[in-house]
Amino acid sequence: RCFHFCKLPGRVMGIRLLRFTSVVIIVLLLVAGALTALLPTIKDDKLPNSRREPKPQTQSALDSFTLIMQTYNRTDLLLKLLNHYQAIPHLHKVIVVWNNIGEKTPEEMWNSLGPHPVPVVFKVQAVNRMRNRLQNFPDLETKAVLMMDDDTLVSAHDLAFAFSVWQQFPEHIVGFVPRKHISTPSGVYSYGSFELQNPGLGNGDQYSMVLIGAAFFHSGYLEDFQQQPEAVYALIDETQNCDDIAMNFLVAKHTGKPSGVFVKPVDIRNLEKDTNSGYSGMWHRAEHLLQRSYCVNKLVNIYDGMPLKYSNIMISQFGFPNYANHKNKM
Amino acid sequence: RCFHFCKLPGRVMGIRLLRFTSVVIIVLLLVAGALTALLPTIKDDKLPNSRREPKPQTQSALDSFTLIMQTYNRTDLLLKLLNHYQAIPHLHKVIVVWNNIGEKTPEEMWNSLGPHPVPVVFKVQAVNRMRNRLQNFPDLETKAVLMMDDDTLVSAHDLAFAFSVWQQFPEHIVGFVPRKHISTPSGVYSYGSFELQNPGLGNGDQYSMVLIGAAFFHSGYLEDFQQQPEAVYALIDETQNCDDIAMNFLVAKHTGKPSGVFVKPVDIRNLEKDTNSGYSGMWHRAEHLLQRSYCVNKLVNIYDGMPLKYSNIMISQFGFPNYANHKNKM
Repeated sequence: RCFHFCKLPGRVMGIRLLRFTSVVIIVLLLVAGALTALLPTIKDDKLPNSRREPKPQTQSALDSFTLIMQTYNRTDLLLKLLNHYQAIPHLHKVIVVWNNIGEKTPEEMWNSLGPHPVPVVFKVQAVNRMRNRLQNFPDLETKAVLMMDDDTLVSAHDLAFAFSVWQQFPEHIVGFVPRKHISTPSGVYSYGSFELQNPGLGNGDQYSMVLIGAAFFHSGYLEDFQQQPEAVYALIDETQNCDDIAMNFLVAKHTGKPSGVFVKPVDIRNLEKDTNSGYSGMWHRAEHLLQRSYCVNKLVNIYDGMPLKYSNIMISQFGFPNYANHKNKM
Repeated sequence: RCFHFCKLPGRVMGIRLLRFTSVVIIVLLLVAGALTALLPTIKDDKLPNSRREPKPQTQSALDSFTLIMQTYNRTDLLLKLLNHYQAIPHLHKVIVVWNNIGEKTPEEMWNSLGPHPVPVVFKVQAVNRMRNRLQNFPDLETKAVLMMDDDTLVSAHDLAFAFSVWQQFPEHIVGFVPRKHISTPSGVYSYGSFELQNPGLGNGDQYSMVLIGAAFFHSGYLEDFQQQPEAVYALIDETQNCDDIAMNFLVAKHTGKPSGVFVKPVDIRNLEKDTNSGYSGMWHRAEHLLQRSYCVNKLVNIYDGMPLKYSNIMISQFGFPNYANHKNKM
């Protein structure tokens, strides 16, 4: 009446052998279980166990962002800024776009000064191009990108807040540097900031761009950027400028709304003067602003229209840094 | 070979008669057309033609708003405020909710001091109830409502800007007075403002309500308010308070997001002290704030949960009043 499977063991092996085999199997399973429990502490990058609560292996793609920082001839600033930015909350990874052609990256030194809070990837470039930072890097795992110039320091508080704002406006460029275009009776556009006349839409000023040198935006826009007309790349390469204006055109076209959302920074600093390299950045060139007006008009030609839209929304953090920063005399 | 319809006129009436009839019909049509062209200048309210460019008969329901102002025992303030608010850009109509039971409205005086920029309707109430202002008034033609307390003066600049912000966030209460709830270890909620501890979600403070006594919201929420549990009306009637807290619960439940968007006012004033009536408003009652904490907990019971969500977004107008109000030391 016994089933087929119990005939063999019972008769062929004997009851004693059966018990011994069962014990061996159970012991092996326990050992395997113990080994599995020990596995998570062995990491590929051979970092020692952290004394504090271990960080989860990967943060959710929606809850973290990737910092992309392009660098040229300011490695001292780069390393100073990396020490700051590597510890920003919700940072997933850093991608350094290395525009110092033919020069070794500081990767060795970086590794020797580990461990670091997040992975940092040095992407060596073949040619020194402004638009190198707008590639669709395969290293990108997050939905959000934080793009920073290699001479700009924004406080962790500002970044944490701006990231939370981006999460509420994911199709916009959410950042700290607003700019605008204005049109003139001749139909020719001009580029500028608040010292330029207001666009004349009611009270106050308006902005139509948020610069990507200190901003969050959706990584999908890097994919979109690869699909732009050749003339756009030619323009950016010709001027070594205007990649940010081109991105604002792209985003505005895509959304049909103002491309950017301006978050007023509490603590933003330009560290240019602190560099030992003597290199002082593209925006000091005499033709810089004229080039940007030139780019606005060229892009209007390329895209056959002006897609940029105005906004006058300025966002600040409620109750920070001053807990009563919204108080009024009511 | 002629069709049926031409047989009769041709033979019965004669060609000459046909021509005469045609001419008469054409003349009548021309006269009717001329009369129709003259119609718009004859208005029901018998206001004389304005000397300046005549205002379009109705502004688009999306581009204008209705001011709803409830009033009790402060008619001097009401009239002072109406002189201010009647001229706000994009205002469509004013609805005054008259809580002075048994007292005549100032309608006669109002009309004698015409013409006025917009229609003002005095809604006489049967009982002096706080929630009278939350009726679904048939006079409402616009999507947007601006609700103001009868002692609050907000500048036209602030209102114009806040209205533009509401148009970008139409499902939220967009206004000038933020408040919050906080939870305590016992599970009992407390109501307060910035002097109360931060909810502890990172840096800075948070708000979870925007009070409707100085705010824009969608007129659809007045419809929704009529569908609330009886216990909500009973609570508001019992306390003569908390209608605004109830509205925030309603909106938060409806959107699943923070109910309000806070716009930082440049110029908001409480005119309470200026009234001749000696009446100083409900919020001076000793139990006012305790009542509001009580209401929060009662509403959580009624709605079986806490729907309010926190936000720390503070919106200001870019470049106004100071054209460089976003400038930083970069």
